[in-house]
Amino acid sequence: MSGCFGTRIQLAIFGESHGPAIGITVDGLPPGLKLDMDFIESEMARRAPGQSALSTSRKEPDAPEILSGLLDGVTTGAPLCAVIRNTNQRSRDYGGLGDLVRPGHSDYTGHVRYFGYNDVRGGGHFSGRITAPLVFAGAICKQLLMKRGVEVFSHAQRLSGIQDESFLNASLDLEALRALRNERLAVIQKPMAQEMEQAILEAKRSGDSVGGVIECMALGLPAGLGAPFFDSVESVLSHMLFSVPAVKGVEFGLGFSMCDLRGSECNDAFAMRDGKVVTQTNRCGGILGGITTGMPLVFRVAVRPTASILREQQTVSLERMQEEKLTVHGRHDPCIVPRALPVIEAAAAIVLEDLLLQRDGEHPVE
Amino acid sequence: MSGCFGTRIQLAIFGESHGPAIGITVDGLPPGLKLDMDFIESEMARRAPGQSALSTSRKEPDAPEILSGLLDGVTTGAPLCAVIRNTNQRSRDYGGLGDLVRPGHSDYTGHVRYFGYNDVRGGGHFSGRITAPLVFAGAICKQLLMKRGVEVFSHAQRLSGIQDESFLNASLDLEALRALRNERLAVIQKPMAQEMEQAILEAKRSGDSVGGVIECMALGLPAGLGAPFFDSVESVLSHMLFSVPAVKGVEFGLGFSMCDLRGSECNDAFAMRDGKVVTQTNRCGGILGGITTGMPLVFRVAVRPTASILREQQTVSLERMQEEKLTVHGRHDPCIVPRALPVIEAAAAIVLEDLLLQRDGEHPVE
Amino acid sequence: MSGCFGTRIQLAIFGESHGPAIGITVDGLPPGLKLDMDFIESEMARRAPGQSALSTSRKEPDAPEILSGLLDGVTTGAPLCAVIRNTNQRSRDYGGLGDLVRPGHSDYTGHVRYFGYNDVRGGGHFSGRITAPLVFAGAICKQLLMKRGVEVFSHAQRLSGIQDESFLNASLDLEALRALRNERLAVIQKPMAQEMEQAILEAKRSGDSVGGVIECMALGLPAGLGAPFFDSVESVLSHMLFSVPAVKGVEFGLGFSMCDLRGSECNDAFAMRDGKVVTQTNRCGGILGGITTGMPLVFRVAVRPTASILREQQTVSLERMQEEKLTVHGRHDPCIVPRALPVIEAAAAIVLEDLLLQRDGEHPVE
Amino acid sequence: MSGCFGTRIQLAIFGESHGPAIGITVDGLPPGLKLDMDFIESEMARRAPGQSALSTSRKEPDAPEILSGLLDGVTTGAPLCAVIRNTNQRSRDYGGLGDLVRPGHSDYTGHVRYFGYNDVRGGGHFSGRITAPLVFAGAICKQLLMKRGVEVFSHAQRLSGIQDESFLNASLDLEALRALRNERLAVIQKPMAQEMEQAILEAKRSGDSVGGVIECMALGLPAGLGAPFFDSVESVLSHMLFSVPAVKGVEFGLGFSMCDLRGSECNDAFAMRDGKVVTQTNRCGGILGGITTGMPLVFRVAVRPTASILREQQTVSLERMQEEKLTVHGRHDPCIVPRALPVIEAAAAIVLEDLLLQRDGEHPVE
Repeated sequence: MSGCFGTRIQLAIFGESHGPAIGITVDGLPPGLKLDMDFIESEMARRAPGQSALSTSRKEPDAPEILSGLLDGVTTGAPLCAVIRNTNQRSRDYGGLGDLVRPGHSDYTGHVRYFGYNDVRGGGHFSGRITAPLVFAGAICKQLLMKRGVEVFSHAQRLSGIQDESFLNASLDLEALRALRNERLAVIQKPMAQEMEQAILEAKRSGDSVGGVIECMALGLPAGLGAPFFDSVESVLSHMLFSVPAVKGVEFGLGFSMCDLRGSECNDAFAMRDGKVVTQTNRCGGILGGITTGMPLVFRVAVRPTASILREQQTVSLERMQEEKLTVHGRHDPCIVPRALPVIEAAAAIVLEDLLLQRDGEHPVE
Repeated sequence: MSGCFGTRIQLAIFGESHGPAIGITVDGLPPGLKLDMDFIESEMARRAPGQSALSTSRKEPDAPEILSGLLDGVTTGAPLCAVIRNTNQRSRDYGGLGDLVRPGHSDYTGHVRYFGYNDVRGGGHFSGRITAPLVFAGAICKQLLMKRGVEVFSHAQRLSGIQDESFLNASLDLEALRALRNERLAVIQKPMAQEMEQAILEAKRSGDSVGGVIECMALGLPAGLGAPFFDSVESVLSHMLFSVPAVKGVEFGLGFSMCDLRGSECNDAFAMRDGKVVTQTNRCGGILGGITTGMPLVFRVAVRPTASILREQQTVSLERMQEEKLTVHGRHDPCIVPRALPVIEAAAAIVLEDLLLQRDGEHPVE
Repeated sequence: MSGCFGTRIQLAIFGESHGPAIGITVDGLPPGLKLDMDFIESEMARRAPGQSALSTSRKEPDAPEILSGLLDGVTTGAPLCAVIRNTNQRSRDYGGLGDLVRPGHSDYTGHVRYFGYNDVRGGGHFSGRITAPLVFAGAICKQLLMKRGVEVFSHAQRLSGIQDESFLNASLDLEALRALRNERLAVIQKPMAQEMEQAILEAKRSGDSVGGVIECMALGLPAGLGAPFFDSVESVLSHMLFSVPAVKGVEFGLGFSMCDLRGSECNDAFAMRDGKVVTQTNRCGGILGGITTGMPLVFRVAVRPTASILREQQTVSLERMQEEKLTVHGRHDPCIVPRALPVIEAAAAIVLEDLLLQRDGEHPVE
Repeated sequence: MSGCFGTRIQLAIFGESHGPAIGITVDGLPPGLKLDMDFIESEMARRAPGQSALSTSRKEPDAPEILSGLLDGVTTGAPLCAVIRNTNQRSRDYGGLGDLVRPGHSDYTGHVRYFGYNDVRGGGHFSGRITAPLVFAGAICKQLLMKRGVEVFSHAQRLSGIQDESFLNASLDLEALRALRNERLAVIQKPMAQEMEQAILEAKRSGDSVGGVIECMALGLPAGLGAPFFDSVESVLSHMLFSVPAVKGVEFGLGFSMCDLRGSECNDAFAMRDGKVVTQTNRCGGILGGITTGMPLVFRVAVRPTASILREQQTVSLERMQEEKLTVHGRHDPCIVPRALPVIEAAAAIVLEDLLLQRDGEHPVE
C-alpha cells in the first residue's frame, strides 16, 4: 500500500501542479486492447478546466503522451506510462502566499509531513490537477469494462441544498445514462442542473464556493466480485475514492440514511427474474458481505466546497509563527463537482476492472 | 491487498462463526509491550454479546488464547497469534434455512463467490463475530497509542432518528470521554441514551432492527501522518472501516453535510495557540490533503440495521431456483451499534498505530 | 511485503520453537478442495525430526489442527488456519546459554533487531521448526497442483563434496520421481545416498555438521507464467526460498556454472515436438525473461551446515559484553538437507500455485 | 507484489527498448536531498553502452529528465519520475527476425504470456536497457546511503573460468574500493582484468559471449536490519536481484560453497572489537537469521552469457510453427558483466535504503 495502488491493475501516480509534468504508470492492463484515443480525449475533456463559467478559466490542454506499453495503438501487457506536460502555470497566482498556509488546503500538513521541502506552488503533488492521469487510466479501464458489458455513470445528486433524484429510484434507460456524460452538469432531473448552476455562480460572485454529492453507478457487473473483510468491494473502492482530493465521505446504497431506518426497510428481498436471482430493491447498493450482488453498484461521495475562496481568511505564517490575514487570488473552481464527475467514475472503473481481472485471470482482450 | 492488511502492523484474520475457532495474527507489534490483559478483556467485553437487552442473548466467553509473539506477557516483535474458540453455537437457529438466502446477508453473494462451498452457518466467515479478533488487536494498539498520548473514543451519534451531539461541537474533558467506554450505550448528551435504547427495544418488540451512526475521535495525534492519494489517512482508515460488516458509509469532519455548505463555512482558519499551529475549528476532521493536522481526528460510520429480523421475508431457494418465504428465528441484536462501538475504535486504533510506526520506525516500547 | 507473503495465496506464519504453538493462515485457497489428510500427514512426516540417525532425536508429533476455512473436509475459500502445538520442548537444552549468542544462529541479530525482547529458546521465531506450517501449506498446494498435472520433486544434489546427477541431465520417469519422496535421503544415483549418509554420520560423530545442495524440479507447468522484472518467477521463488532458514544460495538452470560457459553453451535451441514449441535442452531451468517456458522448472538451493555443533566455539556475552567460550549441548540435526527437501518443495509448490491462480483467476477446484 | 516493488521506497518501472522512452517512478524518497546530478550521470555512464570494445557499440545518451518530486534540485518527498528518451534505435538489427524466437531470449515466453501482443523489438520491456532507470534510482539511494556512512561496491569475481579474489578474503581500503567504480572491468586482483577482457574479446571474435559472477559488498550497515522469513534481507535482496535480466543465481556469504564445508567451517565466531560485537570471519555474508550482523554484507550473482550471439542457431517460427535456422545480427555485448556491475549495486542500494527507512521512519535528509 502506498504510492502504488491496486492488485491486478497497479497505478503509480506522479507530478506536481507547477512542475514539468504529471503522469501515471498503469501496470497489468490486458494485452490486445486497441486504445480508443477519441474516447480517452473526451473523458479528459470532461475533467479539463476552462470549459464553462462553472469552472476555473485556466486552460490545460491535458494531452497525454504515452511512453510505453503500447504498440501500434494496442496494449502490449507491459506497464503503460502516460505523461501530461504542464504548460499553463501562472505560479504568481499562488506564489505570493509565501509562507502563509491556505485554510482548507494541504499547505500546512504537507509542510509538516515533508519537513518544509514540499512543492507548494498550486498545491504541488496535492493538487486536484493530479486527478487528470487518473481520468486517463480510468478511460482505459472503462473501455475494458465496456467489452464486458459494464458501464459507469455519475451525476450531481446534491449540491448546495439542491437535491437530484437517486439512481436507486430513477429508471433511466442506457441512452439517457450515457447522455449524462455530455452534460455540463449531469443530473437526472434536468431542471435541477439549472438550479445547481445558479448556486455555483452565486457562490462564485460572492468569492465563495460550494460542495456537493456525486452519485455513481456501475451497470452490468456480475455477482460474486470482492470478498469479506479487507478485500470488500466497499473497502477497496473507498480506499481509491478517498484518494481523490476534496472527497470527505463515501456511502453505499442507502448509506447514512440507514441510520433512521429499520431492518425491514433496508433488507432487499430476493426474487427470480428470467431464471436469475435478483433483489427486488437495491438498498444495499449492489453489495452484500463485501461482494457484488449482480445488481447495479451504487455509491455516493461527498465533495467539499473548493478550499480556494477569494475572501479574506485568518491564517498563520510558518516563518514568523504568528497569525496573519490571507486573501487568495487566482482562478479557481467555485465548485469542483462538475469536473469531479469523470474523476469519480474513473476511480470506480479502475477498481472494478481490477476486481474482474482478479476473478477472470489473464486473458487477451477479445 | 487481501486477507492481510496493513503496512507496519499486518493483520491476518480467520475463522467462521460456527467453526472450531476464530482468530487473528498481528505482525509488526513493537517489542517490549507488557500486554494489559485486563484492558484487553474489558475491551472484548464491550463487544461481547449477552450484556443487556439491547443485544442478542447469546453468550460468548471470547477468551483469546495467545499462541505466539509473547514471552512472559511481553511482546517479542514476532507475529502474535490469538485464537478464540467457538463454544456457544446453536447452529439449529441458523441451520433450518437450508438453501434459502437471507435478505441483507451475504448468503447469496458468498454462495456465488465461493461456488457454493462457503460455510453459511451463522454467516460463516462473514459473521460479525469475526470482529472479536479485531477488538483484540485493537486493544493492543490502544495500549501502544496510550503510551504516545493518543486515545480513541466513540459514541452513538445518531440512531433511528435520534441525534446526539457531535465530538466536533462538544467539549468533553478526558475523564468524560473515558467514561464513554463504560456505558451500555455511549452518548454525549445523556438523555439521548435512553431515547435510543427505547427505539432499539421497540424495534426488537416488533421483530425488527434499527441502524445508527457511530462517531469516533482520536485525540493526541501529531500533525504530519499520512500522505496524499493512495496513502491518505482517509483512504487507509476507510479501507479498514468498510471491512467491518454492516458499515455502509464513512465520512470525515463535516462529511456529507459539506454538500450544503460554502467554502467559507468549511475551511478551518489557522491560529497560533501556545506557540503551536492549530485550526480554530475542525470541520475537516483533523485531516487536510490526506495528512493529519494535529487536531482531533473525527469520523463517522453509518451502521445498517441488523439484517436478521424476525419478520417473514421474500427470498429464493438456490436449490430449487424459485421464490419462497423465509422467517428467520434465533437470537439477534436488534441494533448492532452498541456492540460495534469498540469495533470501530479498534479499527481506528490499528490504523493509527500503523501510521505512527511508519513515521517513527522501529523502536522498543518505552 | 512482510509477515504476509503471496499474491493470490497469502501466508501469515507465526510461532516460536518453545512457545505454545506454531501455525499458519493460508488465504486464497480455491473453494471445493477435499483435503487429503493422509497426504498432508505424509508430507509433514518427511520433515518431522526423529526419523533416523540422520536427524535430531527430538520427536514432534506435528499434528496440525485446522481451525477455519474447512467444512466437512473441503476448503470453503475462507482463510484456512492450522495450528501445531509444541509438546516436546526440552528448553534446558538451549536454556543454559544465557546471554551467550550462538555462532551461526540468529541469537545476536534477533537481539539487536528486537531490542532484547525476542524469544531465544530454541531459536524462537527463527527456528527451523517454523517450517512445519510451510510444509502443511505446501502439501495443500501440491494437491491443487496435482489436479492441474503439475508435480514437484527434489533430491540432495550435492552434500559434503559428494555429487549426485542433476535433474537437467537425468531422465527419470514419473514413478522414479515420485519414489524420491519415500527415501530417507533422496538422490538420483542411488549409491550416492549411502555416501552422503556416511558423511553426515561422520560429521555427527565429530560433533560437527555438513551442508548440501537441494535440487528441485516442477513438471507439467504451462508456458507463460510470471512476468519480467519484479514479478519474475525467479524473483518470487527466490523470495520465498530465502525465507527458509539455512538457505544461502538459489540458482536456476545452469545457474552459477554459466559463469564459465559461453552463450552458445547456455542458449536452449527451440524445436517443435508433437506440434508444441519446446527447447531441446533446458539450461535456463524452464524460465526465460522471468516467464516459464513450459519445460521443467529446475532450481537449486544451497543449504548451510547446521549452525548447532557440539564443539567449543568462541562467542560473546551480551550481558557482560566480553568474549567467552561456548559449548552447545542438545539434540541437533548433523545435516538439515534430508528434512529440508519437503520444505523446499513446499515453498515451490505455494509459489507455483499462486502463479497459476493469477493466470487462471477464481474457480472452484474441479 | 508486481510492477511495483518496495516497502518504503517504491519503484514503478516502465518502457521498451524501442518505444518512445523508458523510465521509473520512485516513491518514498526522504525530502531534502539535493540530488548530485554529476554522480547520477557518472553512475549511468558506467552502465551505458558504447564505452569500450567490451560492450556493444550502440550509443545511448541515457540522459534522464526528472518530471516530478524535485524542487530546485532537492527532493520534495513526492514521487520522483524520471524519463529517458530512446533515441538510437536501429530496429532493423532486431526487426528482421520476424516471428523467429531467439534462443535464450524472452521472445517465446513473452509471446505466450502476452498472447502475441508484446513488443519484441530489441526485447521490448524485457530488454536489459530497462535497467538504466534502475541505475538512476540506485544512484539516488547511494547518495542517501552515503549520508548514513553506507557504501556499495562490486567487482567481477569470476568470468569465463578466470577467478578474482573475494571481498570476503581481500582487505581493500575505502580508497581502493571506490576506485573500482572507475575501472573498465573492476576486479580486486588487477591482472585478472586483462585476462577477463581477453576472454571477452575472444568470445566476441568467435561471435559468441561469456558469463560471469558479480560480487557485491555493502559497508557500514548497522546490525538489526531485516526480519526472519518473508522479510529476510536475503529474500528481499534476491527478489530485486532476480528482477535484473540475465541473473540466474544469487548467493550470500560462502553461498553454494557451504555444501562442501562443515558447520565448524561456516560458523562465524563472535568477538568484541572496540566495545562492539563483531564476527571474526564473515562466512554468512553479514546476515544471520535474515537480519544484518553489522559486518559487511556480501553476496554474489551469476550472470549468464549474453543470449544474443552471432552464430546460427536452431529455432522455430511461431507463425509457421516449424523449425528454422536463425542468425542474429546487430551490435551486442559479448559479455554483460562490465555494464551489469552498476546495475547490481543499484539494486542493492535501493533495497538497503528501504530497509534503513523501515527502521528509522520518516525524517528529512540531514
